[in-house]
Amino acid sequence: MWDVSGKDNTARTARAQAVLRVGQPTMQAIRTGAVPKGDPIPVAKVAAVQAAKNTPAIIPYCHPLPLTHVGVEFELGVDTITITVETKTDYKTGVEMEALTAVSAAALTLYDMLKQIDMGMTIESVKLLKKTGGKSDFHAQGGRNS
Amino acid sequence: MWDVSGKDNTARTARAQAVLRVGQPTMQAIRTGAVPKGDPIPVAKVAAVQAAKNTPAIIPYCHPLPLTHVGVEFELGVDTITITVETKTDYKTGVEMEALTAVSAAALTLYDMLKQIDMGMTIESVKLLKKTGGKSDFHAQGGRNS
Amino acid sequence: MWDVSGKDNTARTARAQAVLRVGQPTMQAIRTGAVPKGDPIPVAKVAAVQAAKNTPAIIPYCHPLPLTHVGVEFELGVDTITITVETKTDYKTGVEMEALTAVSAAALTLYDMLKQIDMGMTIESVKLLKKTGGKSDFHAQGGRNS
Amino acid sequence: MWDVSGKDNTARTARAQAVLRVGQPTMQAIRTGAVPKGDPIPVAKVAAVQAAKNTPAIIPYCHPLPLTHVGVEFELGVDTITITVETKTDYKTGVEMEALTAVSAAALTLYDMLKQIDMGMTIESVKLLKKTGGKSDFHAQGGRNS
Amino acid sequence: MWDVSGKDNTARTARAQAVLRVGQPTMQAIRTGAVPKGDPIPVAKVAAVQAAKNTPAIIPYCHPLPLTHVGVEFELGVDTITITVETKTDYKTGVEMEALTAVSAAALTLYDMLKQIDMGMTIESVKLLKKTGGKSDFHAQGGRNS
Amino acid sequence: MWDVSGKDNTARTARAQAVLRVGQPTMQAIRTGAVPKGDPIPVAKVAAVQAAKNTPAIIPYCHPLPLTHVGVEFELGVDTITITVETKTDYKTGVEMEALTAVSAAALTLYDMLKQIDMGMTIESVKLLKKTGGKSDFHAQGGRNS
Repeated sequence: MWDVSGKDNTARTARAQAVLRVGQPTMQAIRTGAVPKGDPIPVAKVAAVQAAKNTPAIIPYCHPLPLTHVGVEFELGVDTITITVETKTDYKTGVEMEALTAVSAAALTLYDMLKQIDMGMTIESVKLLKKTGGKSDFHAQGGRNS
Repeated sequence: MWDVSGKDNTARTARAQAVLRVGQPTMQAIRTGAVPKGDPIPVAKVAAVQAAKNTPAIIPYCHPLPLTHVGVEFELGVDTITITVETKTDYKTGVEMEALTAVSAAALTLYDMLKQIDMGMTIESVKLLKKTGGKSDFHAQGGRNS
Repeated sequence: MWDVSGKDNTARTARAQAVLRVGQPTMQAIRTGAVPKGDPIPVAKVAAVQAAKNTPAIIPYCHPLPLTHVGVEFELGVDTITITVETKTDYKTGVEMEALTAVSAAALTLYDMLKQIDMGMTIESVKLLKKTGGKSDFHAQGGRNS
Repeated sequence: MWDVSGKDNTARTARAQAVLRVGQPTMQAIRTGAVPKGDPIPVAKVAAVQAAKNTPAIIPYCHPLPLTHVGVEFELGVDTITITVETKTDYKTGVEMEALTAVSAAALTLYDMLKQIDMGMTIESVKLLKKTGGKSDFHAQGGRNS
Repeated sequence: MWDVSGKDNTARTARAQAVLRVGQPTMQAIRTGAVPKGDPIPVAKVAAVQAAKNTPAIIPYCHPLPLTHVGVEFELGVDTITITVETKTDYKTGVEMEALTAVSAAALTLYDMLKQIDMGMTIESVKLLKKTGGKSDFHAQGGRNS
Repeated sequence: MWDVSGKDNTARTARAQAVLRVGQPTMQAIRTGAVPKGDPIPVAKVAAVQAAKNTPAIIPYCHPLPLTHVGVEFELGVDTITITVETKTDYKTGVEMEALTAVSAAALTLYDMLKQIDMGMTIESVKLLKKTGGKSDFHAQGGRNS
């Protein structure tokens, strides 16, 4: 695991997104509260926060770090659910992996809650939208959310 | 968590994939052993197996189950790394989420190992290729791997 | 950890409850959706299921076992929230601790979600209501839920 | 998970208690070293410390934080065991949930160690006795330990 | 992770040991109850059981399995503490790694409890004493405990 | 868990080692890439890093702390594999247990990867080579690596 012992603590943020593509009957079931396992959004939100905290156990060379914020948002489109997570810390290394792991866990949890309706859903476009703090910032190209 | 107490144990398998889209300099670094953090493939393989076993902690309503196999394969393309995971159990419920969680963890781990070269990589197309066992089988449409 | 290797698998269930006593302003905030951290019930439900699965890590001498069901219910009274959890397995040992750990985690999570309103809440009466399977059944005395 | 990124690190403490009500034969077994599973107190003490450290995994929206102390005490009464836990950190958010989770885990562990003698034990009165640090202190009303 | 899906469940046991070599002042402190952190033996016993259950998370390619027994024994010699752990399951794969991981965790925990007295302690001779069940049995050569 | 709340953060390092004694056929299999489960070294390296991060869950009274570095090295001898791990933090307490737990997990993982060839391997000489920071430094006597 990379040596960050010489680095200073600095304010760091990251924002990542995942898109789950679902069929319209699935989206209809979510909008009308007809998902057999219950409303998937609150469950996926908890999964995102827990996964952000659990990132050093899931991603082998991630440093353990004091996460100060995990914000999770869901946006329902016609046949997509877009999950956006923002993470923050004040530490020696960034929180990109925490944001990316959180959106992935949320998308997988939605899949799990909805698979009785449709097993053909796809998670598309898990990516980092931006990061700030540390040596350099990053902003994804062309993203409306970046 | 869904009640599966009345179900019989049956042989079940699942196969899932994730595609990480990387730039050609990144692919070149992998092929020539020039990734600063070391060869990312073995690390991602371990992450996949560990995530498969850890699925009930990551996905809130997944049942704990006795995984009997996790097989992980990586295929390097021109600008993509395709991760395929096969899972097996002999139990009352399926292993789809284990396979999907494993490919996601592998893709995220590759991202983590490679992000010093490129933060713009995207995880595309996390999906179930097939499942067997239980009430009905599933085969993804049009997939060469299905 | 107690040796259960000679026991047969049998169907087992357990039902436990916890009562969180809250002030009426807190109950009012829950009923009107005015809790600053958001609706606490779905978060506590996920916490209950996760804790049931995580019981062998929380309670040192609990056996790992294949939980086949965790059902969580909340009942809002005038100044109490009663949490009831039912657990099931088909294994060599019982699921009492899973049910008791789940109701405790749900009550603690409600406390965490509500403590900005009131830190004086008390968890009262964490107890086993009934268990079936194994050498003998158990039914709590005088309980309306037993 | 609540944003605490703008807060300063300050010294924080919390003290919580749980009371396990047991029958007198059970208390007699503890006092005479006749519990079939062995002395329950040291096992419950370890469970309390481990649960305090594991709180962010058990309580979904708890921040991970650097616990600097977990002190666990047991007081045997006529038919009660009172567990008191004190926790400390020097961080941006409090350690109340760590103390409350620790006393709950200790009480549940005692239940697990003693249930062969009596399944009717009840955990009563899990509550916060006091907290210091942060915006305001808290002291439970009327408590001899507060 | 090795495919064991085609194997039958069979009764399996394993027995492993670790030896911690300590100085005589350390042994004297243990025997007279003078260890500053408290009696190390009960803490190490819990650590052994917890590590046995946690083996699939610690050893990457170990299968999750239903442990039916973990027995832990400590033998105090003149300047050694010998830890012996016996594990059992009724499953498709063996429990050697569970026994070996448990004795290692116990020895490390003893080290942690005793290091204020002496940091020069060494863990010697972590080894499998015997295993039964599966394709073939194993008995360590020349061991008085085998 | 020992109270370290009054201590200052200071730079701390630790270095530990474990030696796995293997037969020459086993060493030959490693050197020629003929181990049935695959190259054991990268798997053991990941296990070491994960165990270092997981130390507070494995060793009951270890404080959670922000590890800033885990470096893992393997040295293949005639019939031994020597694992050396260096850990760092900038915190109130040392990282000896993290280094010792990491070398143990790596040695156990090598055992697991190689046990199909030989179950008689022994882990010898798990010890602390040196620590710096805190009240006093420590250097093992007579060690070529210390």
